Amino acid sequence: MQGLAPSSKLSLSVVVVLFLLGLASAAAHGRKRIVSSSSDEPCTKMTLYLHDILYDVVNNTANATSAEATKPTALSKSTFFGELVVFDDPVTERNALPVGKEVPAARGQGFYFYDKKESFNAWFGLSLVFNSTTHRGIINLMGADIMSQKTRDISVVGGTGDFFMTRGIATLQLDANEGTAYFRLKMDIKLYECYV
Amino acid sequence: MQGLAPSSKLSLSVVVVLFLLGLASAAAHGRKRIVSSSSDEPCTKMTLYLHDILYDVVNNTANATSAEATKPTALSKSTFFGELVVFDDPVTERNALPVGKEVPAARGQGFYFYDKKESFNAWFGLSLVFNSTTHRGIINLMGADIMSQKTRDISVVGGTGDFFMTRGIATLQLDANEGTAYFRLKMDIKLYECYV
Amino acid sequence: MQGLAPSSKLSLSVVVVLFLLGLASAAAHGRKRIVSSSSDEPCTKMTLYLHDILYDVVNNTANATSAEATKPTALSKSTFFGELVVFDDPVTERNALPVGKEVPAARGQGFYFYDKKESFNAWFGLSLVFNSTTHRGIINLMGADIMSQKTRDISVVGGTGDFFMTRGIATLQLDANEGTAYFRLKMDIKLYECYV
Repeated sequence: MQGLAPSSKLSLSVVVVLFLLGLASAAAHGRKRIVSSSSDEPCTKMTLYLHDILYDVVNNTANATSAEATKPTALSKSTFFGELVVFDDPVTERNALPVGKEVPAARGQGFYFYDKKESFNAWFGLSLVFNSTTHRGIINLMGADIMSQKTRDISVVGGTGDFFMTRGIATLQLDANEGTAYFRLKMDIKLYECYV
Repeated sequence: MQGLAPSSKLSLSVVVVLFLLGLASAAAHGRKRIVSSSSDEPCTKMTLYLHDILYDVVNNTANATSAEATKPTALSKSTFFGELVVFDDPVTERNALPVGKEVPAARGQGFYFYDKKESFNAWFGLSLVFNSTTHRGIINLMGADIMSQKTRDISVVGGTGDFFMTRGIATLQLDANEGTAYFRLKMDIKLYECYV
Repeated sequence: MQGLAPSSKLSLSVVVVLFLLGLASAAAHGRKRIVSSSSDEPCTKMTLYLHDILYDVVNNTANATSAEATKPTALSKSTFFGELVVFDDPVTERNALPVGKEVPAARGQGFYFYDKKESFNAWFGLSLVFNSTTHRGIINLMGADIMSQKTRDISVVGGTGDFFMTRGIATLQLDANEGTAYFRLKMDIKLYECYV
């Protein structure tokens, strides 16, 4: 998985803490906790692409990966205010949809909704579900997606499996879109709490 | 509350950290922070059962604990894609519904929705609300519920009251179900950050 | 921003940890991590007011800041069971709506829904979005809003920008309301993990 590389710049402080913890809990068999002491030094980072193909009620059932659970409200139909979308999107390491029987790096499962009258703006709750030989486990994220900004940060609030108890930041950037039919989000994920 | 027991295997490292913090902040009157240094050693664990009785629009208003806020979308009605359910479920220590005036150990309040075309799969945001002589406070959880797996982990992302600032993992397992009318989830909760 | 003041009561232990980390990672240029060792000592606290004006489908489009994405279910219409509301609410430092061209301290963006048969009760997922000269960044929150209690706590589960990786507690209190048309929530926010 090329997009994922443990940071090679672990600070001395993190190493010291890890060493001290290691001394004290040498009998434990589980993963060991690493916490970055600085925002400069994620313990893990990766770049992934989320592909969302909205069901259009016409003829894309086979391809669609998301659907409107609610319609936009009358408060602001033009900005989709109140439209809730549920999704199970493929997530890839390069910025293209999987080809043929290619298995995506992960699935992005969750929801987003539009929440602004004056312009497009959204809010996400989602899980990145990894189930491959490279990674097994889940990264859980949530937060406002300020679409008026070129890049916007949401929170990594937890994880399971290979990403046990992780926390961090995901920086989202629109990488491509075709009207409302398709969009691709680049996700630069930096984790600052890891168990390794 | 039999299902809940503080871990008796706190690692030496945690105890050392607690001791050092205790020395340094002896004047503080609040709870003290404990963080597990290893995934082997939760600071607290408990087993609970969540009971969900779906409102069926017929005659179970008195018993129902959840209701569909949205209907399945046309993308995949058979797997309930896009159905959003809001719930206020009883949560018990043994795997049976409360009998008579028995007070449940907690309430499970939140939402789930189905999000897959090919099979049943869900996503949860919920709070376990404790309000008894044993526990007072809330555990907040979220994440993908990968229903194709026998056990699946979601994240404990925060807590209040007796569970102030906690984090951890909840392992979910279907313990019983009667079609879509009723399901019971076993929740094995392990907390790795505690204030005691 | 008067409502926000760094805690002047940082415990000795936090300072000691910060000092040790500082020694070890002097070469790092990012923010440094502070974790409170006790629930008595937030690293930051602030008081803010969230103003929610519900769209009533009549004539308040200009003023409304939220709208019903779903209607109450038949399980309990009187307590709005299953009603999901999406919002983009102004957030202020004093308990009054912004006047004229006054810019609010932040926007509260997210959703809440009602989830109880017997009485009003809710669940929140929201972001406080700061974009001023004072603060730039987001605080992400979620959890049960136990409306039967005068004050109730929800979790701060993450943050970005000035609130990078933060965690904490927000204590909510109803400060004013006009039926279902308007409510104002006082939010006392205490953060126990900060990067400064």
